[in-house]
Amino acid sequence: MRYIQANSDVTNRFLKSAFATDMCYMSTEQVIHWLLEQNKKVKVTINKINFDCLESWSFDENKLSHNSGKFFSIEGINVKTNWGLIPEWDQPIINQPEVGYLGFIVKEINGILHFLTQAKIEPGNVNYVQLSPTLQATRSNYSQVHKGKKPLYLEYFQNATPNQILLDQLQSEQGARFLRKRNRNIIIKIDEDIPIHDNFVWLTLGQLKKLMQKDNLVNMDTRTVISGIPLGSFPAEVVNFFNIIQTNANTIHSSFLKSALTDGGGLHSIENIITLVTHLKSTFDLNVKQTPLSKMRNWIIDDKEIFHEEGKFFKVIAVDVEIGNREVVQWSQPMIEPAQEGLCAFVCKEIDGILHFAVQTKLECGNHDIIEFAPTVQTLTGDYRKTKQGDLPFLDYVLNAKPEQIVFDTMQSEEGGRFFREQNRNIIVIAGEEIAVELPEKYVWMTLNQLYTFLKFNNFLNIQARNLISTISFI
Amino acid sequence: MRYIQANSDVTNRFLKSAFATDMCYMSTEQVIHWLLEQNKKVKVTINKINFDCLESWSFDENKLSHNSGKFFSIEGINVKTNWGLIPEWDQPIINQPEVGYLGFIVKEINGILHFLTQAKIEPGNVNYVQLSPTLQATRSNYSQVHKGKKPLYLEYFQNATPNQILLDQLQSEQGARFLRKRNRNIIIKIDEDIPIHDNFVWLTLGQLKKLMQKDNLVNMDTRTVISGIPLGSFPAEVVNFFNIIQTNANTIHSSFLKSALTDGGGLHSIENIITLVTHLKSTFDLNVKQTPLSKMRNWIIDDKEIFHEEGKFFKVIAVDVEIGNREVVQWSQPMIEPAQEGLCAFVCKEIDGILHFAVQTKLECGNHDIIEFAPTVQTLTGDYRKTKQGDLPFLDYVLNAKPEQIVFDTMQSEEGGRFFREQNRNIIVIAGEEIAVELPEKYVWMTLNQLYTFLKFNNFLNIQARNLISTISFI
Repeated sequence: MRYIQANSDVTNRFLKSAFATDMCYMSTEQVIHWLLEQNKKVKVTINKINFDCLESWSFDENKLSHNSGKFFSIEGINVKTNWGLIPEWDQPIINQPEVGYLGFIVKEINGILHFLTQAKIEPGNVNYVQLSPTLQATRSNYSQVHKGKKPLYLEYFQNATPNQILLDQLQSEQGARFLRKRNRNIIIKIDEDIPIHDNFVWLTLGQLKKLMQKDNLVNMDTRTVISGIPLGSFPAEVVNFFNIIQTNANTIHSSFLKSALTDGGGLHSIENIITLVTHLKSTFDLNVKQTPLSKMRNWIIDDKEIFHEEGKFFKVIAVDVEIGNREVVQWSQPMIEPAQEGLCAFVCKEIDGILHFAVQTKLECGNHDIIEFAPTVQTLTGDYRKTKQGDLPFLDYVLNAKPEQIVFDTMQSEEGGRFFREQNRNIIVIAGEEIAVELPEKYVWMTLNQLYTFLKFNNFLNIQARNLISTISFI
Repeated sequence: MRYIQANSDVTNRFLKSAFATDMCYMSTEQVIHWLLEQNKKVKVTINKINFDCLESWSFDENKLSHNSGKFFSIEGINVKTNWGLIPEWDQPIINQPEVGYLGFIVKEINGILHFLTQAKIEPGNVNYVQLSPTLQATRSNYSQVHKGKKPLYLEYFQNATPNQILLDQLQSEQGARFLRKRNRNIIIKIDEDIPIHDNFVWLTLGQLKKLMQKDNLVNMDTRTVISGIPLGSFPAEVVNFFNIIQTNANTIHSSFLKSALTDGGGLHSIENIITLVTHLKSTFDLNVKQTPLSKMRNWIIDDKEIFHEEGKFFKVIAVDVEIGNREVVQWSQPMIEPAQEGLCAFVCKEIDGILHFAVQTKLECGNHDIIEFAPTVQTLTGDYRKTKQGDLPFLDYVLNAKPEQIVFDTMQSEEGGRFFREQNRNIIVIAGEEIAVELPEKYVWMTLNQLYTFLKFNNFLNIQARNLISTISFI
């Protein structure tokens, strides 16, 4: 059993929490009920307004920005690249150079790690109230530019000692919408009792994963933090032993567990995959220059919207928000409204006895370093229902998958503080012989353990890939 | 012995080559002699000229650039940061957005990997001829903007199949001199016989490391490629067995070997170290904006030089170059001339039975991602002999180290194609009890195995750290 000892205490605790869906602080059914209650209680009014009705925001020919110079701004960029079919385009993008916290406080209850989860209202959410991390705060938030209240639990993160930090990663946001934005995904462990404020609840990792199997209950920020949680690496024989003693033996959950925990056994080594990344980053250029909003080609600005002349991609809008029942909070802000629902899917296939994921390498204009790993299918900017057959690898395959192949198919929301009712379909499909081991150029098979390894070293996986990974349940 | 099998064939071959200094294609003494001969044979004339005498270069108020728009340009930047004592400054920087090849062809000779090494003339080198990789080429070189000859051996790299590629990494150059420049460090293996051109020779990894122990024989590009070579990871008991059967037992070389190969045993885990990086990247900002050369504050431009008003840092100069004995090649170009010699040093110390390196986290203005890992001491921009005692952690310690503590102390050249006679002192010092395990803020102990792990994932270690690592010999 030296391997299990060799696995760190931290990964063991997370693994245990991933398997815990009973004997929790609150049952999963209770959580769903509680969340529905929260949603009923709250009153959210969100109205589209003209840009010139935005309070404390300025819209000049260059950009749409907050008068404090903080928060975020909507700016124009000109993109040039030798990747893909379109060598140059203009578009608006969210510029939010601050690194914010997406943080969970965790605590052992009955020997199992529980995550302090907030039922948080965000104006853009389809369900206004979704489960969010303990703390979701930009630097503007916590340096209190908006003169609001200090975010709850902030001090625990600011005062955390190194041995309390179980996870601390810098990960990207949507590369087609944000200019090189990153967040600090952090998990800190506390041992003492702390005050539990209204709308907060303790959940296990297993429960959070189960809740993601419902539409729009768990917000994007929770999903990104969860995705980075390490569960350890073990030699194949130890993982097989795990699977034998688990009640989930021979289910798809045991296949995911084996793919997550097995050190080695990948079709390609990590070094081979880095070679592919190096090749792509050396071959493809991404030149992004700022351009005034008013000068963007193919985009039209009117009183209420910045939109593409063909109605594609997304619109920048302005909204007025009122939230509350007794005490009412009101503000206005720009938001991004998508042109349509998107679709993100991983196609998985067993190769040499281990489940592999078909990972797409993808260049997006806001990427920090040219390309990131993306899901097998990611179509957020066009209407996937109108994509011509064969134009997007694996799209037809995913849309025509048989029910027994589909292990996951839900609608999940994008960040409700920036995106107006944006939800995307998230699918995981298990392929058989009909999908060849040979993949198209720019796609590569990886085990879940390899994906976790790249997650650990930050900025390799895009947020859509991380979101799908976060949903994978082992029971 | 399952671990040795588990270690990849590639790392085993490199490890074997690292131990080979006898029975090579050419003895190390012969190589040194051959290199001296090459140096004698070649005639290099390099003269400083006025900027307006540069052929095919334009110098306007914004920048100094090649008329083709290729190669590189000297531009001005304005830097703002909350790191360190100086919140804002202007400086010239080399902008060379192309990713170039730094590549070795390797081949097994008598069962040992040999590296095809070139005795290459570079005008800026202290010794004009130094040992360089098989191929050193920017995209401009190999797309032949300069209408010169196609670089030798280029086609082997362009046509390499995935199973020929033993290493392929994207690594940074000097962050204080280059704006986010990266090179593709690549090693390909061939099995067939290939033509060996004049000035090329086969050397083992062990020989290259031995040659680095002399001043200015091995160029910077060779050192950076060598630094990334993986040697494998083994459990501690296997490494101990290695060391017992090796003749180098109980020497400093065996300590380096143990630190390089042992998986685990670090004072901090990789995850802990990533936590530190995340903390720093989240806390410190680096804002770099382009500014016209003519508007740089504190820099003076005259006919021949761009220099700092206090004579600090470096100068931009223009040179005319003539190389050859029979056939003469002539061109002119800008170069960077340092204000003085610099010093780069690693302080190492045994902690829990494994040698650890005191690694500095360092923000440099041209860094791709805010901070990189640097040597314990890196002082290239100021005169280390004039640094006030105690102003720079570990500098006094390194300068006063006893001879028996010093395992490495040589002068090494920076890249002779851009830098005019720049050489820096490279030192590795083994510390005892006088250096505490507790380090100053922004410094962290790592084993060599951990440093190799970060090297593998690219863009974590700066070039000065990689240079020092490349010199570490195991015999």
